[in-house]
Amino acid sequence: MTARLQPGDAARLMGRLEELAEFTAVPGQLTRLYLSPEHRRAADRVAEWMREAGMAVRLDPVATVVGRYEGAQPGARTLLIGSHIDTVRNAGKYDGNLGVLLGISLVEVLNRAGVRLPFAIEVVAFGDEEGVRWPGTLRGSAAIAGTLTANQLDVRDADGIGVREALHAFGCDPDDFPSAAMLPEALLGFLEVHIEQGPVLEARGLPVGIVTAIAAANRYAATITGMAGHAGTVPMGLRQDALAAAAECVLAVERICAAGSDMVGTVGRIEALPGAVNVIPGEVRFSLDLRAPAPETRDAAWAEIEAAWTATAGRRGVRLAVERTHSHPGCACSPWLMQAMEGAVRRAGIQPFRLPSGAGHDAMSFAGVTGAAMLFVRCKGGISHNPAESITMEDAEAALRVMLDLVQSLPPVPPA
Amino acid sequence: MTARLQPGDAARLMGRLEELAEFTAVPGQLTRLYLSPEHRRAADRVAEWMREAGMAVRLDPVATVVGRYEGAQPGARTLLIGSHIDTVRNAGKYDGNLGVLLGISLVEVLNRAGVRLPFAIEVVAFGDEEGVRWPGTLRGSAAIAGTLTANQLDVRDADGIGVREALHAFGCDPDDFPSAAMLPEALLGFLEVHIEQGPVLEARGLPVGIVTAIAAANRYAATITGMAGHAGTVPMGLRQDALAAAAECVLAVERICAAGSDMVGTVGRIEALPGAVNVIPGEVRFSLDLRAPAPETRDAAWAEIEAAWTATAGRRGVRLAVERTHSHPGCACSPWLMQAMEGAVRRAGIQPFRLPSGAGHDAMSFAGVTGAAMLFVRCKGGISHNPAESITMEDAEAALRVMLDLVQSLPPVPPA
Repeated sequence: MTARLQPGDAARLMGRLEELAEFTAVPGQLTRLYLSPEHRRAADRVAEWMREAGMAVRLDPVATVVGRYEGAQPGARTLLIGSHIDTVRNAGKYDGNLGVLLGISLVEVLNRAGVRLPFAIEVVAFGDEEGVRWPGTLRGSAAIAGTLTANQLDVRDADGIGVREALHAFGCDPDDFPSAAMLPEALLGFLEVHIEQGPVLEARGLPVGIVTAIAAANRYAATITGMAGHAGTVPMGLRQDALAAAAECVLAVERICAAGSDMVGTVGRIEALPGAVNVIPGEVRFSLDLRAPAPETRDAAWAEIEAAWTATAGRRGVRLAVERTHSHPGCACSPWLMQAMEGAVRRAGIQPFRLPSGAGHDAMSFAGVTGAAMLFVRCKGGISHNPAESITMEDAEAALRVMLDLVQSLPPVPPA
Repeated sequence: MTARLQPGDAARLMGRLEELAEFTAVPGQLTRLYLSPEHRRAADRVAEWMREAGMAVRLDPVATVVGRYEGAQPGARTLLIGSHIDTVRNAGKYDGNLGVLLGISLVEVLNRAGVRLPFAIEVVAFGDEEGVRWPGTLRGSAAIAGTLTANQLDVRDADGIGVREALHAFGCDPDDFPSAAMLPEALLGFLEVHIEQGPVLEARGLPVGIVTAIAAANRYAATITGMAGHAGTVPMGLRQDALAAAAECVLAVERICAAGSDMVGTVGRIEALPGAVNVIPGEVRFSLDLRAPAPETRDAAWAEIEAAWTATAGRRGVRLAVERTHSHPGCACSPWLMQAMEGAVRRAGIQPFRLPSGAGHDAMSFAGVTGAAMLFVRCKGGISHNPAESITMEDAEAALRVMLDLVQSLPPVPPA
């Protein structure tokens, strides 16, 4: 027996997304930070929907709402499906929330059809993905993956409130966080549906895409030191203009990343000193954010960028100093889950398309613990972290159809 | 009979430059703004030196110290020689002051030899060239040129003090400013010795250079509007990165100005918005300062730059808006005075070299009134507006020698 979508399933999902967006700290816009009162109310509503969908619900020690839908046999592995219900300030309605509510819809459809799978499903609503309130992020998914450490709870927000204190107030017992961890051998995998937050699927005319990897990301702070001088009295040939050198560096990033596959490089900050209209910039500071699906690709791109920057500095007689300020290895998605997902996408009549995720997601927490895969859903204009964030009901339905097919096609244990 | 330099003349000049630098608002650095108490004390000391050199001294209505050295016959024309004794904050000792004190040394040498020329010399020590204290500048030279207007005295400094009030306190009668004006037919010309404030003479190994023109200058404020986006999720090919576009614009300025003769273009300010390390810049604002010896050259360069910028914006799908924020036509130096100066330079055993002035000077005030010429003196590293500003005694002596020869070679009236 196979559970199938019925008319109204996608509309109900879209309606819940609208309703969930009402749980906000700021009327008229969506702002829902980890462990806030509105997070608490949203968690309660999510729990209700989980129960209505046939799940047994619990709140774990770090405020993840977990709804369990038992498998055909007790003792089977668990497939985790979910995402996060915290948001940035003035957020869109779909980032995170779609993945949670789509997971609930999926179980609802299974339950309606009386379908039990050869594994249990746990739909998870993490509360700490955006990292807005406290330093650090992904505490919810890390707790279940078993990689959360106690010191990640020992930080304070801008009002001096610690994570532990806020968890107590939320109704959780933070000291019990190790109990949230699931053993790798008890897990089948982790599936996350998420809006793309970029324009690729829209540009290709595709409702969904299969994520290959969450990008390895490095960040750098660069300083170019030339020679400040009078804008009127130093001839072009005698200048050591730090901004002209930096401009070459910006364009080198663009050129090198555009030549690579799935690589992105961004200079988001730039500052020229002394910053007067009639003074040749003597110093320019700028940032670089560099991401690629694999750390090796990223590092190769960086080597090429660094060589280009060094050549520019040498040719122009300016000094270049670069500091790496951030590094994350990213993670590759699970090949067997991607392959299974690809079959489900094809069966839904959609051309399978693979793309990397440049943004970080809860799925990263499961690297090395269990296989993770992500399905991206097209979002309008690639816009996210913005009230203009938007998806269509048709695309939500396509994603739900793919996921419903996918879970019904998975084996009880990962292939060897 | 010819007046000649003697050993010690240049050393005395250098000594006075050191002494004058002691008149400052800030012990340990040189800061002497127009009509300040230190300006008053410096003016008094300059007047003393003028008297000792054989000049009759007056303070004009806008606080210019004028030392008159009569010519061989009464009723002859007057050759103005000078520069300014106000400074920027934390200034060097030579900017302006060199031209004033060298003029005094020159008369001192003439007077010592009992030489009277077929014209009178007036050494002028203007007080308002840097424009630091009040909006506007060049009030001293404009008053003598007859182009000062009453409303240029109706401005207030940061403390609310007006120019007129400060002139009264200085001991001047600002209402009498029209009396400072000299008729064109009473003038032979205006000569200004000034440090180059740039690196050209040093690069060419020359102590002095003949200024061809004071640059025509325009300033522009440009804004490029692209599309902000997530640094991780928008592929390179789908970006409208305002900073990458601006980087091309910066390099276009450099390329176009480097290709032109004596042209300089500078992007001194740049700002990328929103200015986050992980966000593609959606908007970039930057400045352009563009100077050339003639307005036509400057305008031709601007046309080329604007075309390049527009092409960049079109190709990248970003919007470009440019506003002109400043425009000064500059002025050409007097051909006959330049030619006479060239002869004097050659006779001093120095290869004559002509160069434009990218910076503004008091000499600009005399455009259309009388011929003006400037002799630039090499300064160390091209550094100016900085305590590190430095010239050698040998170069000061070369300039004094050239000027002494020059004034003794000039006719009593300008050639037709």
